[in-house]
Amino acid sequence: MEKEKQLVFGHKNPDTDTIASAVAYSYLLNKMGYNTEPVALGEPNDETKFVFQSFACPLPRIIDKINGEVKSVILVDHNEPQQSVDDLDTVEVTNVIDHHRIAGFETKNPLYYRAEPLGCVSTILVKLFAENAVEIPLNLAGVMLGAIISDTLLLKSPTTTDEDINAAKALAKIADIDYRSFGIEELKAGTNLGAKSDLELVRQDAKSFDMNGVKVRVDQINTVDLNEVFDRQNGLEKAMEEDAKENGYDLFLVLATDVLESDSRLLVWGDHKDKVETAFNGKLENNTMNLPGVVSRKKQVVPPLENAFKN
Amino acid sequence: MEKEKQLVFGHKNPDTDTIASAVAYSYLLNKMGYNTEPVALGEPNDETKFVFQSFACPLPRIIDKINGEVKSVILVDHNEPQQSVDDLDTVEVTNVIDHHRIAGFETKNPLYYRAEPLGCVSTILVKLFAENAVEIPLNLAGVMLGAIISDTLLLKSPTTTDEDINAAKALAKIADIDYRSFGIEELKAGTNLGAKSDLELVRQDAKSFDMNGVKVRVDQINTVDLNEVFDRQNGLEKAMEEDAKENGYDLFLVLATDVLESDSRLLVWGDHKDKVETAFNGKLENNTMNLPGVVSRKKQVVPPLENAFKN
Repeated sequence: MEKEKQLVFGHKNPDTDTIASAVAYSYLLNKMGYNTEPVALGEPNDETKFVFQSFACPLPRIIDKINGEVKSVILVDHNEPQQSVDDLDTVEVTNVIDHHRIAGFETKNPLYYRAEPLGCVSTILVKLFAENAVEIPLNLAGVMLGAIISDTLLLKSPTTTDEDINAAKALAKIADIDYRSFGIEELKAGTNLGAKSDLELVRQDAKSFDMNGVKVRVDQINTVDLNEVFDRQNGLEKAMEEDAKENGYDLFLVLATDVLESDSRLLVWGDHKDKVETAFNGKLENNTMNLPGVVSRKKQVVPPLENAFKN
Repeated sequence: MEKEKQLVFGHKNPDTDTIASAVAYSYLLNKMGYNTEPVALGEPNDETKFVFQSFACPLPRIIDKINGEVKSVILVDHNEPQQSVDDLDTVEVTNVIDHHRIAGFETKNPLYYRAEPLGCVSTILVKLFAENAVEIPLNLAGVMLGAIISDTLLLKSPTTTDEDINAAKALAKIADIDYRSFGIEELKAGTNLGAKSDLELVRQDAKSFDMNGVKVRVDQINTVDLNEVFDRQNGLEKAMEEDAKENGYDLFLVLATDVLESDSRLLVWGDHKDKVETAFNGKLENNTMNLPGVVSRKKQVVPPLENAFKN
């Protein structure tokens, strides 16, 4: 008897890992006797499209709701309900593969839940293929490698573990490519800044934080050349001001990150600039400050800023 | 540099799986370079003592609070905070191995979380030993086998999976024992009914359920001979009435389970006896009803009873 169909998907605003993991885990599950289809909760970004095209791997169908199509689903790369499909409460979750904290996630029944504190979900999947003695096909190895490169900024971000590095090397061998040169092409493909307006750039990857009552906005722009960002400094500052006034942000930081060099430079608008100088132990010049070695907003920017606002 | 010490423990009111899993996972983690100690959140029951004595395996230390002893902990066989140590919110949880639903569990940071819908946590641990290429020593194999026998009632409960059966056989081989004859001895050791009062018997493993506004209490008594229970029927009925009047239960069920034959007989006190007859499609005689093949309160008693109260 055929198993009942299930959908496999990652989070909204999908990145390369979330889509590659859904496609790869669905393939593995089907080899294990499940009946699954990978889907995406949104349009793939330019980097993801580049990766999937490079390995001739078809992109999954896009859905915005379950709409009664299946009774149970499988989550990858997320567990918090607000990051998932809107009508998640209409289905049962039977499997989760993730590398984030657990929050707000509840089930009625026992399930398969595999989370590990690694840089990328695809690294966990490499282990699952091995544990279940299923070979990774060439095109899946390519997109899973693309996922690791994306999540770890070519194995340089502070979230990178030895397991991510070993998985990337093993996948590069199967896909038969040089992961460094492919990774540079991939990261470049994801930073097509010329096609975006100033307002799009300060909004596209921005998150809000409440720091001791102050509304702080932190956006991150990945690039392969910081001049590409700072040649537009005047326009970006106007866009930050417009966005801040519209949404009531007190302080706005744009973290421009050179993904090849693993360095960043800040652009700052608003009040409390002294807190920024305290947090990063430096001086703002013309509203900018170099942050050598900084690439992670979550690990290297938000915590020191929160500390500065506590004192 | 030595790793910072962590405690490993299962749930309150510990059973054999919760204690054996803590001991076995702590051993595995220490082989992997962690620095952990297994502890128990309460006195081991008679069955657990029998199993640990049989394999000369030391029982873990008992704690009731963390009391600042460590900064981070590892949970086995549970995740819901109310089943865990009272001051769990003072520490970080870095690893969880479980086979229950997820509810009320939240972390600030990514962690290692491994849940599988299997009969016993020790079955998951057998896989983890293999994945990490660590051999299971004889005495640990014995107590892990004891855990599987306990949670699956000698591989007969409806929660038993093929993986539990295979794990039990593999562990019996390492421990060099006949798991069937050992299992019967173990289950007998856990049902020392003669030493307990009627009130203790109706309280020791009882849970409350709200069914359409009716307060239903369901206790389970494991035995190797149903006559041991029903020879005391008058005393047990008086104890049920006393406990019900004290705590406001409308309906009280005692599920007496013959763990060797995998059959049960119900003893019922209170209102709504017609719902019990509807739920199990039979007639109560002298407040009792045979339930052939029923061993699981969670899977075979509560759901049909809830359905009967819905109509």
